[in-house]
Amino acid sequence: MHAVSTFVVDLGERSYPIYIGGGLLGQSEYLTPHLKSESVLIVSNDTVAPIYLERLKACLSSATKLEVVILQDGEQYKNLENLNLIFDQLLTQRFGRDVTLIALGGGVVGDMTGFAAACYQRGVAFIQIPTTLLSQVDSSVGGKTGVNHALGKNMIGAFYQPQCVIADPQVLKTLPERELSAGMAEVIKYGAIGDIEFFNWLEANMPLLMRQDEALLAEAIQRSCQNKARVVAEDEFESGIRAILNFGHTFGHAIETGMGYGAWLHGEAVGAGMCIAAHVSRAFGLLQEQDVSRIVSLCKAAGLPVMPPEDLDSDRMLELMRVDKKNKQGVLRLVLLDKLGKAVIVDQQETETLRQAMITYSAENYL
Amino acid sequence: MHAVSTFVVDLGERSYPIYIGGGLLGQSEYLTPHLKSESVLIVSNDTVAPIYLERLKACLSSATKLEVVILQDGEQYKNLENLNLIFDQLLTQRFGRDVTLIALGGGVVGDMTGFAAACYQRGVAFIQIPTTLLSQVDSSVGGKTGVNHALGKNMIGAFYQPQCVIADPQVLKTLPERELSAGMAEVIKYGAIGDIEFFNWLEANMPLLMRQDEALLAEAIQRSCQNKARVVAEDEFESGIRAILNFGHTFGHAIETGMGYGAWLHGEAVGAGMCIAAHVSRAFGLLQEQDVSRIVSLCKAAGLPVMPPEDLDSDRMLELMRVDKKNKQGVLRLVLLDKLGKAVIVDQQETETLRQAMITYSAENYL
Repeated sequence: MHAVSTFVVDLGERSYPIYIGGGLLGQSEYLTPHLKSESVLIVSNDTVAPIYLERLKACLSSATKLEVVILQDGEQYKNLENLNLIFDQLLTQRFGRDVTLIALGGGVVGDMTGFAAACYQRGVAFIQIPTTLLSQVDSSVGGKTGVNHALGKNMIGAFYQPQCVIADPQVLKTLPERELSAGMAEVIKYGAIGDIEFFNWLEANMPLLMRQDEALLAEAIQRSCQNKARVVAEDEFESGIRAILNFGHTFGHAIETGMGYGAWLHGEAVGAGMCIAAHVSRAFGLLQEQDVSRIVSLCKAAGLPVMPPEDLDSDRMLELMRVDKKNKQGVLRLVLLDKLGKAVIVDQQETETLRQAMITYSAENYL
Repeated sequence: MHAVSTFVVDLGERSYPIYIGGGLLGQSEYLTPHLKSESVLIVSNDTVAPIYLERLKACLSSATKLEVVILQDGEQYKNLENLNLIFDQLLTQRFGRDVTLIALGGGVVGDMTGFAAACYQRGVAFIQIPTTLLSQVDSSVGGKTGVNHALGKNMIGAFYQPQCVIADPQVLKTLPERELSAGMAEVIKYGAIGDIEFFNWLEANMPLLMRQDEALLAEAIQRSCQNKARVVAEDEFESGIRAILNFGHTFGHAIETGMGYGAWLHGEAVGAGMCIAAHVSRAFGLLQEQDVSRIVSLCKAAGLPVMPPEDLDSDRMLELMRVDKKNKQGVLRLVLLDKLGKAVIVDQQETETLRQAMITYSAENYL
């Protein structure tokens, strides 16, 4: 038995615990106290379910009504049409308001299950069991749920908090390396925007983290969640400081939208997005050149792309960035770095400096 | 200029005013202070827009970005597919988080616009301008938004409050008589469940109300909204007392679902549903026979159906009622009348008494 660490995301009435520990997926004692009743609907996908569904079901022997929805795996299925598959199952099986939805999968499963829970009968309970590094460190904290629209990512959704989150680093052993890298992008982000000690620790430990050292992964997950939880607790509904969590994401979303959902993993787009954002920060006279280098190098050590796709030029990216929901009345809202470990929010009316910086960015200059 | 009455629905941070007065639709001074910015999207339908859209637009000269979505009129279009038309417009026109959605229409437009506002970018502002009696007295108060699913009414939605509600009784002059009756069902409901003086007043004034006396209509709207607001303020998220607002609705929803959305108007189904519920109340030893008669007679005076459709038998209705979201773990939750002016909530495990009462109900016995 490995150690289990618990901490609480502090959101008043909507506070909830995150449990982190190897082997947690097979243990019922952390899960069952958070069920609202004996009615449970598990939502998973066709990649995760064959590996972990039976183990989760074995923990739910107390449920007298237990059904499962298996979604197709991939960001391209994160839309209203597939969300409706969850509603279909809930209604066909006549689940009432006392149902608890359990999300077993990555960020897409978590976001869709959370949004379905927010909307079904105007709100039922849900529990997150994230099975990717990305979802363990990012989408399981903060209550952002939703689906994509053909014209923009995460444009339809709700702020909705789970009953609890259960993060088991052991499940990452079956995760493709590309997805481990993608998750690491968000881990690096927490260091870059607000925790220089964590950034230093990541530089020292990235090789072992990428070789799946379980204890180090558990520590990285916990420090990431705590960093995110601190920001979210300050600003649950994203009216201010929470926007710094979008470091690398404005560029990243443009890459994802421009390439079509699913071509680049979210974390890969964020990795390249952070490198671009670091360079733009320098062009705006904020970040030092050697710190841009440290970010680009750490992303590279995590196996992340550090350049945007070749067939997506800066003007197209800028056009895609303008539809981002963080913008107000035509002003482009950027999250930049004042220094390593300190993010700032910059509202940019005039985009020519930005455009030039994007055109001149080359990772080679920093490596 | 007619008198304008204002009262506030008291929901803490989410409190909002309701303005009631003849001619309000053409006046900008009540509307514009509640806009979040100069970006406005009006959502209406193809029945209401040709009559009132230009008048509303004339009040919005301060809006620098003004777009319109026209939905098809009817309960059968209240689904995720048509909801997406609102998202399409919001994204195509690149509306940001500062947009204000204005619902110009009946309950369907209001519910869909409110739900779109709740979900677009995880929450933007909206204003209700209800144009039917039903929406003026019911759906504009209480924050229930959402869409239907093929397997159940209002199964997908959110609790979400508007910035303000503007109710103009003059617009009812263009309302078909059948819809005036449908709205009157909810008006009668407020008297029956919690305001015997209002019920008495309605009995005395129903002929003039049905002849569209504007001052009496304004009073009926105001007393209805105040009754509803009082209950909603006590229980915003429907964990207890708010359920009494569903008097007649469990039976009514079964009628609507059984006949297919759109065949019966919601208020018509609620009218027949209240009459059945009154009879069931009597069968359970609660309501007196003469009070059942008063409810049936008042519904009849309002031009409402007082019997369920002939081709929907009691067993099919019961089956449809079991999927209602007010039920917990197989127990059927009924809202009945203890006496005229006082509703009670009854959880019914054994449905045989209910079934027999439904089979024996005949409005003729009470008229």
